Amino acid sequence: MTLPGEEAPLAATVDFDVGDLLASARLNEVPTPFLVVDQPTLERNLAAMQNAFGGRSASLRPHVKTHKCTAIARLQVAAGAVGVTCSTTDEVAAMAAAGIGDVLLGNVVTDRQRLRSLAASATVARVAVAVDSEEAVSLLAAAAAAVGALVGAVVEIDIGMARNGVASVADGIALAETIAATPALELRGVMAYEGHLVDTADRAERGELAVRAFEPALELLHELRARGLEAPILTGGATATHDSTGALPEMTDVQAGTYALMDATYRKLAPEFEPAAVVVATVLTSRADGPLVLNLGQKRLGSDWGHPEIVGYEARHLYTAEEHCVFQHAGGPRPRVGERVALLPPHICTTMGLYREAFAWRDGEVADGFAIDARDPLA
Amino acid sequence: MTLPGEEAPLAATVDFDVGDLLASARLNEVPTPFLVVDQPTLERNLAAMQNAFGGRSASLRPHVKTHKCTAIARLQVAAGAVGVTCSTTDEVAAMAAAGIGDVLLGNVVTDRQRLRSLAASATVARVAVAVDSEEAVSLLAAAAAAVGALVGAVVEIDIGMARNGVASVADGIALAETIAATPALELRGVMAYEGHLVDTADRAERGELAVRAFEPALELLHELRARGLEAPILTGGATATHDSTGALPEMTDVQAGTYALMDATYRKLAPEFEPAAVVVATVLTSRADGPLVLNLGQKRLGSDWGHPEIVGYEARHLYTAEEHCVFQHAGGPRPRVGERVALLPPHICTTMGLYREAFAWRDGEVADGFAIDARDPLA
Repeated sequence: MTLPGEEAPLAATVDFDVGDLLASARLNEVPTPFLVVDQPTLERNLAAMQNAFGGRSASLRPHVKTHKCTAIARLQVAAGAVGVTCSTTDEVAAMAAAGIGDVLLGNVVTDRQRLRSLAASATVARVAVAVDSEEAVSLLAAAAAAVGALVGAVVEIDIGMARNGVASVADGIALAETIAATPALELRGVMAYEGHLVDTADRAERGELAVRAFEPALELLHELRARGLEAPILTGGATATHDSTGALPEMTDVQAGTYALMDATYRKLAPEFEPAAVVVATVLTSRADGPLVLNLGQKRLGSDWGHPEIVGYEARHLYTAEEHCVFQHAGGPRPRVGERVALLPPHICTTMGLYREAFAWRDGEVADGFAIDARDPLA
Repeated sequence: MTLPGEEAPLAATVDFDVGDLLASARLNEVPTPFLVVDQPTLERNLAAMQNAFGGRSASLRPHVKTHKCTAIARLQVAAGAVGVTCSTTDEVAAMAAAGIGDVLLGNVVTDRQRLRSLAASATVARVAVAVDSEEAVSLLAAAAAAVGALVGAVVEIDIGMARNGVASVADGIALAETIAATPALELRGVMAYEGHLVDTADRAERGELAVRAFEPALELLHELRARGLEAPILTGGATATHDSTGALPEMTDVQAGTYALMDATYRKLAPEFEPAAVVVATVLTSRADGPLVLNLGQKRLGSDWGHPEIVGYEARHLYTAEEHCVFQHAGGPRPRVGERVALLPPHICTTMGLYREAFAWRDGEVADGFAIDARDPLA
């Protein structure tokens, strides 16, 4: 995949003063690597996305898998989000416990212990979950009935990811009918995720592909309503397609996530949002005409997508090993051995969960941080 | 990279009864995904590697980055290991606190806070660390002097990884002379790592490449000794080359790590060791002629190398997303939705740190588990 801007300036920039941050006496007491979130940038991103939903029939239901922080989720709801989307039952439990009243688990759950947790969350918040098989519905119904909870269910239909989701509209109708006939469950509607095309470089083409991909989901929704089934929700979408889903008037809940913190890769897809999170690392090795090596690797930097960038230095990322991130210096000043640098993570969603907390930075000072508190308690 | 046996049987096997494990009432109370280590297999691996060092002049110095467990490190030392190798100062601190008396940090450290931690560890254990620049030596010396510790230093020379390490024998000699002249430091010898060739498929070729790669490291060692410098150690190596380093009589400390727990990928390189660790996961989706999806992804399964395998089922791994591991069923019985399966991780070294503990399994029962206690406290 070549992303737009992939060959553009090598020296990453951010909208906040990284020099001040790296000079902070308090942060210099913390061993690297550690995460820092610039709060004003985060707040601008939250406001910008919320503004993009002004005057739209769809609501923003931010995906919290990207940050796993109840504190950030509360900011998103305070900014106007209708609720949140989660990817695990641990995220659901943390969000419900933090007072988020409306939680969608945008994933299928079939583990009995996790279903027990989900049903417990449904006794304190309005909870819905994706289902894609009769077995998943049956397991969910048993868990809900066991604690007397009413759990919402959205039928997930596969629109190209070849992952979760029913394979056809007919299968979706049959599943919805089962849900509607199950006392412990409430049919809420349809979910689909166009994840296979969110990294399409051209934005207009991406939007057209997304709208076309949703056709089976729309057909399923119409078929359910034609049968008199209550199916108020159509949910899906991402930061990269949040605007194009405006061409789908049936869409009710858009699951954009990455816009909150952004990263080196996603900013090329949605440049109206700015990176708010950096990882501070230390230069281990900086040989003249040789590698430039930082003291973090795959164990502390989600490395499944794109490339990290060093803020303010021209360097081309070569590879990330277990405990090393290796660049080639590409001109201009060269970071010294022992110097701390700010790194834009390649993929924020797989980076956040590798830390227990993120420091918060506001106007040149360390502010109250963000506990990354929606992880699996066993993680 | 195509590994030997990559096209071999799709249904993974292990040396312990996974059916019993999956039926365990106690483990069925734990939400998936979780890690389980089969203790007899672990013990056989530890004994087999230790036996391979019988009659050799080199010692085994196991790399604990692969498990990050002080309990497993203690078993390795009890089995005869001369000490351990670490990749982070957090691992060093945990090992020293757990009573491991001889600890090598096989990585460069230049972060002042981490150097402070390292020097503190050197007051309770014999500690050495890799260095590859005058700046790194100077930072290390300052940290050691600040607490009155004597810290060992090995000169790392780059033998092909293009990562850490001095670029030439001449640079290595100069650095060793600096170390020898620094009161807070003790020159211990030379380190090199042949990581760029450990996945060479043919074992004989791999061994020859490794021995040839070490030539500059040997030259550096000989030059240091010719100058009258004390340089007792030559350290490097891996599970995949532990035997071929026998052709290097100067090698003193072999840093094999993965042999303890193994994984789906490394077993193709060193089949004399058996996988001892599985991740238990639950089937989310299992569509006829469609994807087979498990409830864990990159956030709970190190996915930087190779492919996971499902024990006892024929399935071809397609991809691992953030929260999903997607296979194509390839014949034989098909796992049901809601069923728990045992997965061989593709890469154990990047999987262990994603969990807080591993359950231990012995002869059909859950035994005392392994705390994964050498992680970064901020992770």
